[in-house]
Amino acid sequence: MKLTATLALCASLLQAQKGVLPSWNDGPAKQAIIEFVRATTDKSSPQFVPPEDRIATFDQDGTTWVSHPMYTEVIFALDRVAELAPQHPEWKATPPFSAVLAHDREAMAKFTMKDLEAILMATHSGMTPEDFQSTVKRWLVTASDPRFHRNYTDLVYQPMLEVMKYLRDNGYKTYIVTGGGQDFVRTYAEQVYGIPPGQIIGTAVDTQYAFDKAGQGILIKEPKLLLNNDFAGKPEDIYLFTGKRPRAAFGNSTGDRQMLEYTQSGGGARLIMLVLHDDPVREYAYGPAQGLPDTKIGTFPQSLYDEAKTKGWTVISMKNDWNRIFPFGSTGSASRRKKSK
Amino acid sequence: MKLTATLALCASLLQAQKGVLPSWNDGPAKQAIIEFVRATTDKSSPQFVPPEDRIATFDQDGTTWVSHPMYTEVIFALDRVAELAPQHPEWKATPPFSAVLAHDREAMAKFTMKDLEAILMATHSGMTPEDFQSTVKRWLVTASDPRFHRNYTDLVYQPMLEVMKYLRDNGYKTYIVTGGGQDFVRTYAEQVYGIPPGQIIGTAVDTQYAFDKAGQGILIKEPKLLLNNDFAGKPEDIYLFTGKRPRAAFGNSTGDRQMLEYTQSGGGARLIMLVLHDDPVREYAYGPAQGLPDTKIGTFPQSLYDEAKTKGWTVISMKNDWNRIFPFGSTGSASRRKKSK
Repeated sequence: MKLTATLALCASLLQAQKGVLPSWNDGPAKQAIIEFVRATTDKSSPQFVPPEDRIATFDQDGTTWVSHPMYTEVIFALDRVAELAPQHPEWKATPPFSAVLAHDREAMAKFTMKDLEAILMATHSGMTPEDFQSTVKRWLVTASDPRFHRNYTDLVYQPMLEVMKYLRDNGYKTYIVTGGGQDFVRTYAEQVYGIPPGQIIGTAVDTQYAFDKAGQGILIKEPKLLLNNDFAGKPEDIYLFTGKRPRAAFGNSTGDRQMLEYTQSGGGARLIMLVLHDDPVREYAYGPAQGLPDTKIGTFPQSLYDEAKTKGWTVISMKNDWNRIFPFGSTGSASRRKKSK
Repeated sequence: MKLTATLALCASLLQAQKGVLPSWNDGPAKQAIIEFVRATTDKSSPQFVPPEDRIATFDQDGTTWVSHPMYTEVIFALDRVAELAPQHPEWKATPPFSAVLAHDREAMAKFTMKDLEAILMATHSGMTPEDFQSTVKRWLVTASDPRFHRNYTDLVYQPMLEVMKYLRDNGYKTYIVTGGGQDFVRTYAEQVYGIPPGQIIGTAVDTQYAFDKAGQGILIKEPKLLLNNDFAGKPEDIYLFTGKRPRAAFGNSTGDRQMLEYTQSGGGARLIMLVLHDDPVREYAYGPAQGLPDTKIGTFPQSLYDEAKTKGWTVISMKNDWNRIFPFGSTGSASRRKKSK
């Protein structure tokens, strides 16, 4: 190829890249994504990946939408306890339900995993998946985040929506792999992320096949955990659902560590990314700088940061790598900085 | 539309249908398939189904390939017991393994479900899914069916391959939903049925995330049942994997009953089919005429036949509805009849 032709090609490639991932600032994170896609989809690349193996998995809470200061699904469950209370008079005197009904914030702040599990089970079982999803849908259009005054489904990260679409446009199949409830996320994932129900891998309770009064076959959600899709559960369930190892994986906390390790262990070109919450102005800051313990769920402790650096994973700085956080409004960093002056 | 135009359209539709499902004889079974596809894919049809809801589920053993007189996967497991015996000297004196190693057919014929489970667990766990699948692949190219003198993956039903393709050509996503092992079927399903690993729903053991000697993240198959994908387990797992209710379901035994009921209970146009093994010349005959008990696994007892008739399910007669059984050789009914005279 002549030099002029090469230069023309480079110019056109750069031009094409400009339109890609517009909410990402130029930098190592954006470059890592673009280079990974090039290396795995260019047929002449030694790291080419056939389309059927192009699998990308995304944690949800803190990775694709806001999960601070409380998981959205937990807020839903607490609201449901209040709504269901008339049918459960015993809850008034039964912890942990009593604390929720009394709005006892101090007691709620001390909830153990067992307390939360009791609340989740009571609000996530005893009905068909269809009825559960109707309840979630009703809640999602009315509930509002107290800081952003937006529905929770608005609080998704625009840059992650762009990565999902960019990967799909390049033949990747995108999955949500969440510690959250599979049926909860299925309610809105198609609309919000463009990801269909069959590509939502989440924590799941058992269902029981039964007949309704009309003799029709239905499923009933049981108060019994079937898949605990967090930590080691993530790679285990990814294999259960897909029969494959992901090529790209996105997380933000210790619950994603094994998914990221498992993805990288496949060898070849892999994209491993961690979202670092370091933007208290536009979102929140609760990264390694907070000195959080290694075992606390949903956190990004120093040990994870160190592992990322050692293994060459890409840490995404919300503050520096994203010029826009949410799809709504003017959340660009330039305009924000002007406003915050 | 003018009459002549209508007639021309009908003629061309009939012509198009002729090329469809060539191994199916004209009759109610073939018509049910074609009419279902028309009703659910024609945009002007009141029973139109949007592409994302077009899900068709197929049982495997006895529905898409030969499962008589023994499940292929059980034959594999018995062969594996012999192969693994040197590493398990204790098996020589431990039932049920001792019976397998002594080729004690009488004892093997009396194996309980618990015996079979012990054999399946011993041969299906303690390794990575990748190592398990390598073993299955090696076995599949050497093992041969004693009656047909063919590899087991050759013993698939050509008419069912045609239905799968016909449904896929019309926007349906096809799934195998099998009481057999998910990882076993995943080994060959893409090649044999054109169905990728992520669309195989099967009986599955737990896996355990671990590190290999090189520090790489791997999964190990554990001797612990996670999903028992038979009977009520089928609708439960279909929902777990897809978040949907199938529009079409194919089975051949009591283990498929709940999947078929669940599919029909969704209402609207549904295709519910049962393969009846009534062709002892070209394959086997072990249908309701054999007076089998309702509870025996893998059988088509009178009660299932009666339910099919009551609920309007289509029973496929292998003898009458299929002019060809296998993809190989000349197994057409005409040539068979000539030969058997």
